[in-house]
Amino acid sequence: MSSRIEKLYSIAEAKNIDVFLITSPASLKYFSGYYFYFEYGSSPFHLLPSALFVVPGKTSSLIIADNELEQSANVYADISIKPYISYLYETPLEFAEQFLLQLHGLFKENNINSARVGVEPNFFPLVIAQSLNAKYPKIEFIDIASEIALLRAVKERDEIEFIRAACNLSDIGQAAVVKYASAGITEGELFSEVRREIDASAGVRVPLMADLVSGTRTASGGGMPTNKIINTGDLILSDFTPCLNGYWGDSCNTIVVGESTDEQRKTYELVKEALAIGIDAIRPDMKSKEIDQLMRNHIGNFPHHGGHGVGTMYHEEPRIVPYNNTTLQPNMIIALEPAIYKKDYGIRLEHLVVVTKNGCEVLTKFQHCLKT
Amino acid sequence: MSSRIEKLYSIAEAKNIDVFLITSPASLKYFSGYYFYFEYGSSPFHLLPSALFVVPGKTSSLIIADNELEQSANVYADISIKPYISYLYETPLEFAEQFLLQLHGLFKENNINSARVGVEPNFFPLVIAQSLNAKYPKIEFIDIASEIALLRAVKERDEIEFIRAACNLSDIGQAAVVKYASAGITEGELFSEVRREIDASAGVRVPLMADLVSGTRTASGGGMPTNKIINTGDLILSDFTPCLNGYWGDSCNTIVVGESTDEQRKTYELVKEALAIGIDAIRPDMKSKEIDQLMRNHIGNFPHHGGHGVGTMYHEEPRIVPYNNTTLQPNMIIALEPAIYKKDYGIRLEHLVVVTKNGCEVLTKFQHCLKT
Repeated sequence: MSSRIEKLYSIAEAKNIDVFLITSPASLKYFSGYYFYFEYGSSPFHLLPSALFVVPGKTSSLIIADNELEQSANVYADISIKPYISYLYETPLEFAEQFLLQLHGLFKENNINSARVGVEPNFFPLVIAQSLNAKYPKIEFIDIASEIALLRAVKERDEIEFIRAACNLSDIGQAAVVKYASAGITEGELFSEVRREIDASAGVRVPLMADLVSGTRTASGGGMPTNKIINTGDLILSDFTPCLNGYWGDSCNTIVVGESTDEQRKTYELVKEALAIGIDAIRPDMKSKEIDQLMRNHIGNFPHHGGHGVGTMYHEEPRIVPYNNTTLQPNMIIALEPAIYKKDYGIRLEHLVVVTKNGCEVLTKFQHCLKT
Repeated sequence: MSSRIEKLYSIAEAKNIDVFLITSPASLKYFSGYYFYFEYGSSPFHLLPSALFVVPGKTSSLIIADNELEQSANVYADISIKPYISYLYETPLEFAEQFLLQLHGLFKENNINSARVGVEPNFFPLVIAQSLNAKYPKIEFIDIASEIALLRAVKERDEIEFIRAACNLSDIGQAAVVKYASAGITEGELFSEVRREIDASAGVRVPLMADLVSGTRTASGGGMPTNKIINTGDLILSDFTPCLNGYWGDSCNTIVVGESTDEQRKTYELVKEALAIGIDAIRPDMKSKEIDQLMRNHIGNFPHHGGHGVGTMYHEEPRIVPYNNTTLQPNMIIALEPAIYKKDYGIRLEHLVVVTKNGCEVLTKFQHCLKT
């Protein structure tokens, strides 16, 4: 498994970058393979992100807390690991100072001083900038976040397989909803079955963003499961976004408990058709906004995006929205999620696909079906 | 409910601060009441923290994404809400620019230009600093993180009640382990019951940091539940740190499935005695390190802290460690967690207490008991 660091070299050339310091969780995973457990964040014993230090064409190092060395097992072989002491119970320790010792060591080793440093400024802690500024007054921090976002949009083969595995967990969650949904249990009890089956399949505790709402709660499109009891005739909207090995899956289904009404069936079919229209239209050279528009043309407007990219972040480029002129490319991964929301109920259906040479392959394998 | 913002005024005086910009999740909750759902972070539609802007003695405002306005219901009444547009699906939008519009508006309204700005630099995004520096070249960012950490260590009455409620969830988790632990089920299945009962009690999905390990896995002191099957004679170590309304609880228990051995019982009693010795010794005027030392004197050294403060962060001041000279004060909240780890098993027991005038009150109400 090679890292994707060479993709940074084109950014280095275009924006005259001497060194990169990557600190956002999603980009750290993308470029280095390192990730931390999403539900906790990085270790509670230190509160700075890891940082990937890259001198284009020369060297790549990951500065990482020593108590996260286990996570460094995922780091690509061509990146050297620079652990810092992050916590000691025996003696006082400033973890930020330890981090900065490693960072300044790398700057010195590589003779970097009046550098242009490529960073993602929303995710770059001031403490690091202050320390570098103090030592190297001529240093400049250059925003390369949008360039990285575009890089990340097109996936490599190994990434597609990671996302496929996360989609399988999403499928397992949707199957659990169909299996366990019944009148009389609560949304929370149903969600408990979903998590149990997903975690059992993965063999680990899986970070899971989730909407699970029933009855009139579906009209707002989402929300967390509560102690609301599911009643006969209730719709259940379930949107599951699990993370496995640092990559996300995503799908949404809507089912009915008991008998559906004519209107529910009609609305459901419309949304299902809109999703099929979107999926059928996906191919290289189509624009993001065209996919979005085709779905809205069929079912009318709905108050959120038509879809979004998925990778090391659950929402990323390409955004499937009315204004986005991005042209689709093979190996982009896209969630489509058309919806109709009425006064007292809502129906949303979502699949995740990978763009191929001539169309797309659907990665979420479960079948949308209103009736359990 | 009044905010705790006035406590910042003493820091303003001591460090000559003109304005505070608070951005760490734990301090935002502490000073403003605002918190986001820990398992997700703030909204996936924007990726900047909220920011609390405080001019001492004059004004307090919370800059918050418009799609997080629901969370502003928790914000104390004397803080004005400054929402910014964080996401539109219809038109392109740079959420950071929108955030900065609100921030620059507040600087202008309050005639702040060559200010000393108090920040927590580990949690302060470079993008904000760059924008303020560009407009106000003489601005200085002053690190006030350690001063805030000391403020947060001593709790107010309402905070103690929030932590009490979170401890109740931790108790419910420990009771679920005792109730459902049996030979033949997996750690993950047991954890599923724990989460179901905690979530049902809270009526919401509860962020939960957790160790749940069995058998020889207890020797390492923790880890996430897996598909490992629990066998007769296995110890189960369960450490539950749930978050409710932005405040954390914490407790740890160790039980045996089936019959315990003489050695297990002996080790268990030693740890239980060490915990009792620590709790009995807690009172104002004792030093953190003295509590730590008393526990280690009884059971020998163990390779982690003896305990820690708990509040809007799961680990905070006062750290109960060998070097900490902090003197305990009434209304500090402290977890103690002595442990003995052998080659093939480990036992850790933990309670959370609030320091009182003459001693302490134990907030975690479950009883440690090796046998189920």
